Amino acid sequence: MKLPEKTVERLSQYRRLLLNYQFLEKPFIFSKDLARMLKINSVHVRRDLMLLGVSGSHARGYDVQDLIKQISLKLECLTKKNACIVGFGHMGRAVLELFAEGGTPINISAIFDVSTKSIDQDYFGVKCFSMEKLETVISENDITLAILTSIDEELDGIKDLLLACGIKGIMNLTSHSIDLPPEIHLEEYDLKTSLIKLTYFSET
Amino acid sequence: MKLPEKTVERLSQYRRLLLNYQFLEKPFIFSKDLARMLKINSVHVRRDLMLLGVSGSHARGYDVQDLIKQISLKLECLTKKNACIVGFGHMGRAVLELFAEGGTPINISAIFDVSTKSIDQDYFGVKCFSMEKLETVISENDITLAILTSIDEELDGIKDLLLACGIKGIMNLTSHSIDLPPEIHLEEYDLKTSLIKLTYFSET
Repeated sequence: MKLPEKTVERLSQYRRLLLNYQFLEKPFIFSKDLARMLKINSVHVRRDLMLLGVSGSHARGYDVQDLIKQISLKLECLTKKNACIVGFGHMGRAVLELFAEGGTPINISAIFDVSTKSIDQDYFGVKCFSMEKLETVISENDITLAILTSIDEELDGIKDLLLACGIKGIMNLTSHSIDLPPEIHLEEYDLKTSLIKLTYFSET
Repeated sequence: MKLPEKTVERLSQYRRLLLNYQFLEKPFIFSKDLARMLKINSVHVRRDLMLLGVSGSHARGYDVQDLIKQISLKLECLTKKNACIVGFGHMGRAVLELFAEGGTPINISAIFDVSTKSIDQDYFGVKCFSMEKLETVISENDITLAILTSIDEELDGIKDLLLACGIKGIMNLTSHSIDLPPEIHLEEYDLKTSLIKLTYFSET
């Protein structure tokens, strides 16, 4: 059974927090403290951890090390999926560096770019191909996910090509919106929207 | 009066969509079409646009060009605020490039990094300083916002320093969580959580 989308998102956030917390003296944590630190309702925390199959002690709360382990098992020990990065500017390189750190259930199997400086080079053991090789490389490497970063080419054309290649999920990190059929999962982050919100809501 | 946080976020998303839509033949759009494309309820769209002070025609919907203009006026013609980028790896450079494109209510006034290769260099007219200069440069340039990207130094130490300098809003693009006092606005994006969700929810 699939966990709800918000639960997956929060489990990842709990782990992120707990990875800091594990170095403290006290190796237990209460759901209400996790909730307070993430500014969410502790009912959500308890329900998420119940769905994970973890139970805490009334007196001491949850074992921090065990919680990190259980969340990691749930989020990472899916079968690893193969992904490609399309567009290898600074954002593409930031994604690749993060992947090289580990902790994600993804293999980056290929990079695609238009720059002749990058094509045929190796980055952390991942090869960069020209856009013309997209279809062949995706099919030969069983790639099912695509991470789009800023590219000069027309985004809709690339999207259509990716869908024709059988891509099942897309992460859109460009500043343009894309429209996908409902069966394709879309993760999206628009840095520009975040910058606007940061400015709008910071009282100065 | 401040607009609600979700409204600001959606206004930015409407604009992002409309910027594609403006090239089409039909220069009008209905709230229900905006809602459908963003997979949200059209009641939200109508309320957001009402808060913006724009009204559409029953027969034709909203004028696309006018809508883009009104949203931009609302989101950008706040007084521009000065921001600094802390950490100048690939993610920091991606932020700077985006800012150079325009369309955000921010001046990037300084960059801080530990790498001697970057320090004292100029990027798009913005100077990179050593971390030791943080306090002086922030105070001299009236910088109120900070954008944190991956840095080798300890995040909590930098956060404390930024708060002591009077920073009012922080965007955290590192993969570590930070805890801020409630009066400091926090925007956060964790690429790793997004990658996990992409993998978990893409049916393959």
